[in-house]
Amino acid sequence: MTETAAIDRLTCVIPAGGVGSRLWPLSRANAPKFLLDLTGSGDSLLRATWNRLAPIAPPERIMVVTGNAHRDSVAEQLPELLPENLVTENEPKDSSAAIGLAAAILELRDPDAILGSFAADHVIRGSVLFQRAVRTAVAAADQGYIATIGIHPTHPATGFGYIECGDARTDLAPFDVYEVEEFVEKPDEATAGTYLERGGYLWNAGMFIAKATVLLDQMALAEPALVASLREIAAVWGSTKKSAVARERLWPGLPKVAIDYSVAEPAAAAGKMVCVAAHFEWDDVGDFASIADLLTRGRKGDLAVLGDGAQVLSDASSGIVVSESDRLVALVGMKDVVVVDTADVLLVTSKEHAQDVKGLVNRMKVSGGGHLL
Amino acid sequence: MTETAAIDRLTCVIPAGGVGSRLWPLSRANAPKFLLDLTGSGDSLLRATWNRLAPIAPPERIMVVTGNAHRDSVAEQLPELLPENLVTENEPKDSSAAIGLAAAILELRDPDAILGSFAADHVIRGSVLFQRAVRTAVAAADQGYIATIGIHPTHPATGFGYIECGDARTDLAPFDVYEVEEFVEKPDEATAGTYLERGGYLWNAGMFIAKATVLLDQMALAEPALVASLREIAAVWGSTKKSAVARERLWPGLPKVAIDYSVAEPAAAAGKMVCVAAHFEWDDVGDFASIADLLTRGRKGDLAVLGDGAQVLSDASSGIVVSESDRLVALVGMKDVVVVDTADVLLVTSKEHAQDVKGLVNRMKVSGGGHLL
Repeated sequence: MTETAAIDRLTCVIPAGGVGSRLWPLSRANAPKFLLDLTGSGDSLLRATWNRLAPIAPPERIMVVTGNAHRDSVAEQLPELLPENLVTENEPKDSSAAIGLAAAILELRDPDAILGSFAADHVIRGSVLFQRAVRTAVAAADQGYIATIGIHPTHPATGFGYIECGDARTDLAPFDVYEVEEFVEKPDEATAGTYLERGGYLWNAGMFIAKATVLLDQMALAEPALVASLREIAAVWGSTKKSAVARERLWPGLPKVAIDYSVAEPAAAAGKMVCVAAHFEWDDVGDFASIADLLTRGRKGDLAVLGDGAQVLSDASSGIVVSESDRLVALVGMKDVVVVDTADVLLVTSKEHAQDVKGLVNRMKVSGGGHLL
Repeated sequence: MTETAAIDRLTCVIPAGGVGSRLWPLSRANAPKFLLDLTGSGDSLLRATWNRLAPIAPPERIMVVTGNAHRDSVAEQLPELLPENLVTENEPKDSSAAIGLAAAILELRDPDAILGSFAADHVIRGSVLFQRAVRTAVAAADQGYIATIGIHPTHPATGFGYIECGDARTDLAPFDVYEVEEFVEKPDEATAGTYLERGGYLWNAGMFIAKATVLLDQMALAEPALVASLREIAAVWGSTKKSAVARERLWPGLPKVAIDYSVAEPAAAAGKMVCVAAHFEWDDVGDFASIADLLTRGRKGDLAVLGDGAQVLSDASSGIVVSESDRLVALVGMKDVVVVDTADVLLVTSKEHAQDVKGLVNRMKVSGGGHLL
């Protein structure tokens, strides 16, 4: 019996959840961030994620985990996605449950299955560099490690978490693999500056590559009940009545835990986590300021325009115009402005206040206007 | 024969021209400033002007001078306006021609006619104070003077011209009438400050009250050919073919001169100009910053909203939202912003740059987009 190469045991899992409320009114409950084209490429972030993974894994080894409400939109955007690889959640239960369920399904399909988790709503440029990093991570995963991919920082970003790297692990790969000393939360600007100056810190892009069983066993140390439930659901996974009953019984009670807490941090502390240091461009497109920077490549004074029919007239203005109409948008003397022009909502803010959009959305949830969210 | 009281010889002339391009995209070639409701009162500025004059003069003594293109809109907004009092221009020829033509028509109707010229697109609050000022000005006009009405300044405005007043003319009226020393152009902020500190300066509101013949004779000193043409046109004024021929022959060649230069300044230099110092609130609504100040009564940090269906959600924002749609307008962290939301154009600027809108409009005239002007 020939052993299957590690890369051929990789299933790419795309957790597609999260509305992205900082991108309201472009993102809505029924049009979450991952279904949107935020780069003007013509592809949604989800579709772009699929395209990025397609050279690494065939369709039968790409899986999407999403909410019931988005099943049809996801299937429409990804016609190649096999029905058995479209995993839907009854309700959102954060990343441990979403990725853990995929892992539990995969370990039953193949005890040596390797799982790679890649967010549905990030932007990556440099597909060859991305593929190389994934292959390196898969090799480490095949040795029993949980691998993550960290991004060489280009500026002292305060919107991302960082990974502090330790010794190079040339035993696992000739290049780019390091021990993970610690995951660190989003820093303030001064701290981010010291990270860049000191070196050895990478942006945490939230990618995890591990054997499905290794991932679940690690998760079980922190969340034994969660993993037991996930394995119980996976055991009867499918379209049968038995499967539906199991999900209805178990899913509502699952704890909401980010995989960073249930897997990444404890694994790092236990020396089971390694990091692949990658050189591709990456952004989690967290707010409109990020989109503006992506589209203008960060050039100050530039005005980014996103939208098909958008006509923009700018007099001494910079920032971003997102237009879903064919109206003329005229800007006079607006620096770092954010204008989002949709059919039923117009948002005007600044790059500086782009993060505060989430606060407005949260207020609307309680004070009315929920139909616009 | 009983002499008619001066106030009963007053005809109010409303020159209704000027698109108000600093108020684009609310103002358009086919929706000039005077046809717009800029205060949220439900009345256009023109209609509000009529309402303000109605207690002073009956409909047969209120005249409107406007462009051919606006004839129908004006007639619609002012159903009381008599057809013979709707004077239309073949093309705009500035205020000397517009007011001069009205004067030439009026002096033929009554050699003792008094003309009062009141802009169609200013905002005035305090109608009793306004009426009192007009009556005082009419009394001075009846004595052969050209009277203007100046406004006590409330702040060192740089957007208005000023009138430097001299001695009180208690011989003409017991209160509020002064010699005009000089008309001064829009000052810079420091100069405006010294005007307020020194006292004796009023805002030039561009109102002129004089006997029609006195006004024309004064204008003829500076612009004899213009006045000769206007009197020639007025002599055959009406709907006859002869009238049309005279207009077509003479109107295109008329010089474009502001009445400030043809009448006000030389009359002041000659000691024939007096000023009534008035206490009503006045604004020429020159740009969106003015509208914001009018609607918020100048309170900093307040957000003004103009528009019927406008829904506005503001998080730490101030300035003005003008909405012609029923879309939600959400503002996050925008200080002194100007948002004008129309069916085909969205303008975003700031109170600071509100004057620069005119520059954008001028660029559009030459570089395309003229259909949106």
